[in-house]
Amino acid sequence: MARAGKPVSGGFSPVLTVDRLAAKPLHRQIYEGYRAMIVARNLRPGQQIPSTRALAVELGISRIPVLDAYAQLLTEGYFESRVGAGTYVSSSLPDLLPSTDIGKARPPVDGSGPRKLSRQSAFLPDFHDPLWAFGSGPFSVGQLDFDHFPFSVWDSLVARHCRSVRAAALNYSDPMGSREFREAVASYLGAARAVQCEARQIMVVSGSQQALDLCARVLLDPGDKVWIEEPSYPLMRYALEMRGCRLIPIPVDAEGLDVHRGIRRSPSARAAFVTPSHQYPLGVTMSASRRLQLLDWAQTAGAWLVEDDYDSEYRYENMPIASLQGLDRSSRVIYIGTFSKTLFPALRLGYMAIPMDLVERFSAVRRVTDLFPPFLNQAVMTDFMIEGHFARHIRKTRLLYSQRRNALVQALESEFGSRLPVAGAQAGLHLVITLPDGLSDCEISAQAAAQDNLRLWPLSPCYLGKRVRQGFILGFAGTRAADMPNQVHRLKKALTPWL
Amino acid sequence: MARAGKPVSGGFSPVLTVDRLAAKPLHRQIYEGYRAMIVARNLRPGQQIPSTRALAVELGISRIPVLDAYAQLLTEGYFESRVGAGTYVSSSLPDLLPSTDIGKARPPVDGSGPRKLSRQSAFLPDFHDPLWAFGSGPFSVGQLDFDHFPFSVWDSLVARHCRSVRAAALNYSDPMGSREFREAVASYLGAARAVQCEARQIMVVSGSQQALDLCARVLLDPGDKVWIEEPSYPLMRYALEMRGCRLIPIPVDAEGLDVHRGIRRSPSARAAFVTPSHQYPLGVTMSASRRLQLLDWAQTAGAWLVEDDYDSEYRYENMPIASLQGLDRSSRVIYIGTFSKTLFPALRLGYMAIPMDLVERFSAVRRVTDLFPPFLNQAVMTDFMIEGHFARHIRKTRLLYSQRRNALVQALESEFGSRLPVAGAQAGLHLVITLPDGLSDCEISAQAAAQDNLRLWPLSPCYLGKRVRQGFILGFAGTRAADMPNQVHRLKKALTPWL
Repeated sequence: MARAGKPVSGGFSPVLTVDRLAAKPLHRQIYEGYRAMIVARNLRPGQQIPSTRALAVELGISRIPVLDAYAQLLTEGYFESRVGAGTYVSSSLPDLLPSTDIGKARPPVDGSGPRKLSRQSAFLPDFHDPLWAFGSGPFSVGQLDFDHFPFSVWDSLVARHCRSVRAAALNYSDPMGSREFREAVASYLGAARAVQCEARQIMVVSGSQQALDLCARVLLDPGDKVWIEEPSYPLMRYALEMRGCRLIPIPVDAEGLDVHRGIRRSPSARAAFVTPSHQYPLGVTMSASRRLQLLDWAQTAGAWLVEDDYDSEYRYENMPIASLQGLDRSSRVIYIGTFSKTLFPALRLGYMAIPMDLVERFSAVRRVTDLFPPFLNQAVMTDFMIEGHFARHIRKTRLLYSQRRNALVQALESEFGSRLPVAGAQAGLHLVITLPDGLSDCEISAQAAAQDNLRLWPLSPCYLGKRVRQGFILGFAGTRAADMPNQVHRLKKALTPWL
Repeated sequence: MARAGKPVSGGFSPVLTVDRLAAKPLHRQIYEGYRAMIVARNLRPGQQIPSTRALAVELGISRIPVLDAYAQLLTEGYFESRVGAGTYVSSSLPDLLPSTDIGKARPPVDGSGPRKLSRQSAFLPDFHDPLWAFGSGPFSVGQLDFDHFPFSVWDSLVARHCRSVRAAALNYSDPMGSREFREAVASYLGAARAVQCEARQIMVVSGSQQALDLCARVLLDPGDKVWIEEPSYPLMRYALEMRGCRLIPIPVDAEGLDVHRGIRRSPSARAAFVTPSHQYPLGVTMSASRRLQLLDWAQTAGAWLVEDDYDSEYRYENMPIASLQGLDRSSRVIYIGTFSKTLFPALRLGYMAIPMDLVERFSAVRRVTDLFPPFLNQAVMTDFMIEGHFARHIRKTRLLYSQRRNALVQALESEFGSRLPVAGAQAGLHLVITLPDGLSDCEISAQAAAQDNLRLWPLSPCYLGKRVRQGFILGFAGTRAADMPNQVHRLKKALTPWL
């Protein structure tokens, strides 16, 4: 194994052209070819070179000129040989060889035509996040507890499915996902979320973001009006903005999205994108009457409802609330959920429940988007659910996160009293604290990240309109209850100059 | 079992059934019973509900589960309490709820608004494939050999990365993919494909389809003209059609896409999507002069070139050809590759090399599309490459597929002589046979699938224009060389009635 600094892929025959009829001898052509590739950084320090025998076969020539060329490259230090392990590009070549002659990452050449990108992609803000969103910290949103994840169970399921792999599991497959997994998801959603669906309505996705993007592509045209919650999840907004939709922000009050105001502002909107279980970011639960009003409007107006149920598994003060989809009488709701909050985000596994008459169009669009989901995680997750590990994990983490939430709420109270009101703590994995008038959450976040190494997610960027509340979205799932008072003390130190 | 049949105000008697022996807890039964009655309009807004004490007595159970259920119904807004006057069905519930039962997969309700989908999704053909594309067979395109896949090595790498999992590998991550994997891919592409790029230009995707879709979204606007090869890969076309682009089919001859004809037809096209290494479906390799013409045109016209190098690892009769990207002097090429053909499709792992100045926009669009790629496969594949297993696997399968190709070409010759000309067999995992004039490949494919259980991929659906060649695309990677004569004999039996 060759490891020289950065990982390089070994043993590939390089793109080396030799011409048996040329005046230049073959060994010279091979020598010059390798040298050029090393100088141009197509071959990297530490990268394994094919054996002389393999290269001779590859080029369809005798081994002798290959041996000559390799000897010279070894002599000149471009190659090094490791006893019993083959030949490598010398690992002692300087790492910062200039590569200008071939020019990697070249700037556009003068006189070249324009470099025009799509208007659609221009809708999006710069990818590079502000400092407060980099890395993780005690209050990072989306941070989870991994100390209690049943890794040994998970790993044994992964091993089981690696061993017993069938050709069917390796080949191209259905864009909706694996049959077995969709059955498991449908029965989970029926029991835990009162979602009304059959397995064939379930589409396996990589998470709620892919689901939101697919909804935008299947359901909406550029210029269509869409209700969104005000404030809302910025990446949900971006999915709609990238589609060219006109966003109509509808205020969220203590009962969730204000349907009557929505109807006054935009009665003929084509869709509403909502988070009824635990509104992002404010944490409100949409009341039953609002849910029924929303469904009524959608049915009358011919609008679609996209329900993002991203962290509904975590409720601390009452039983889980039935989904909007479960109340829907006219198949207007596309239900979205994810395992990113219950298992881990890098799993990239989520699901949608799609109205039956839309399944075919969603399949067609999904196939063109990325064909179908990977097999292994689906197989592992199916067993994880069927064998009861998932339910146990939810129960365990619900208790854990409830303790962490309590610790955070208590610590906030003891440090700040009533100066920083807390909202949205009844459910989910984050809560919100609001700041007194006149303070800028973004300014404080930037300074806390730079000076105190504390990442605070500001509330105001979640607003689309001008009436903005300043505050912070505090995640609590990744910080132990015992550690919470210290972390809140850090928070207080960071905020003190401003309060 | 107990029944509560006590009339409430309004003269309506709810029939609430609870079963003390059921697995479902009592409070849940009560909650669900009420909710169902409210949703079904058996209970009306403003209707009074029995007190908790009364209901407990009525049902002959303790008051605790009743209190729990009522608390939940109040929280969710189904009930409202009026001080000193008891509990009521919420009066703000809308009056026009339909009263059908909670049905699964309900058809749209009569009188409901329209169910309009996006024009974009309407561009796509029906998802459900014709019979010849279902399942697999001896000549299925995309079928690979799995008998020689190093499963034990792969599994031990999976196990290694499951065991040593770090929190960083579970959390949200970079939309471009993992740093280590991108280093390994960049060094592989530099050596094996003469691609000129640094690791930070590599984006990890789920396969070439996601890459094509991202290119369409980042680079193109609806209405933009795009050169595509005629014939071409239908799913590449769909990605562009879904984007609303105007496709300009440019004929492919023995040297690949005819650049001069392209310039005559549409000099100001915004992009060209090409498969230079092994044209899909015809199997031609684009000549060096055509590559340079194409790059020249792109630079002058300010056009993008999207190079799908989907099966370039398999060449049998000559040395690997440097990629179009490696010849590009003005950073106009987006290079796409996949592990679907070299490892297995259900891995869902591919990559792009993106011009440096576009990396930021591709990141932004990819984040909104599906956030970032899953971690495990990237970690496993990194080691698979660094430790030389990938190079070995390619060498082994190149030999294997070369034998299978030879066996297919020989068997076709001995069964059909020169009646069915073979093309595109110098590289890749499929070849093409063309049919005599007057025959319909789709008709024959349909019959062969239905009558002979033989899946033949017809050539004509790959054409966009009217000048269409009839034939079949025969994959050979999944059929053993020794079995090839028998399978070609089956093919002959299926074709004989037509020839």
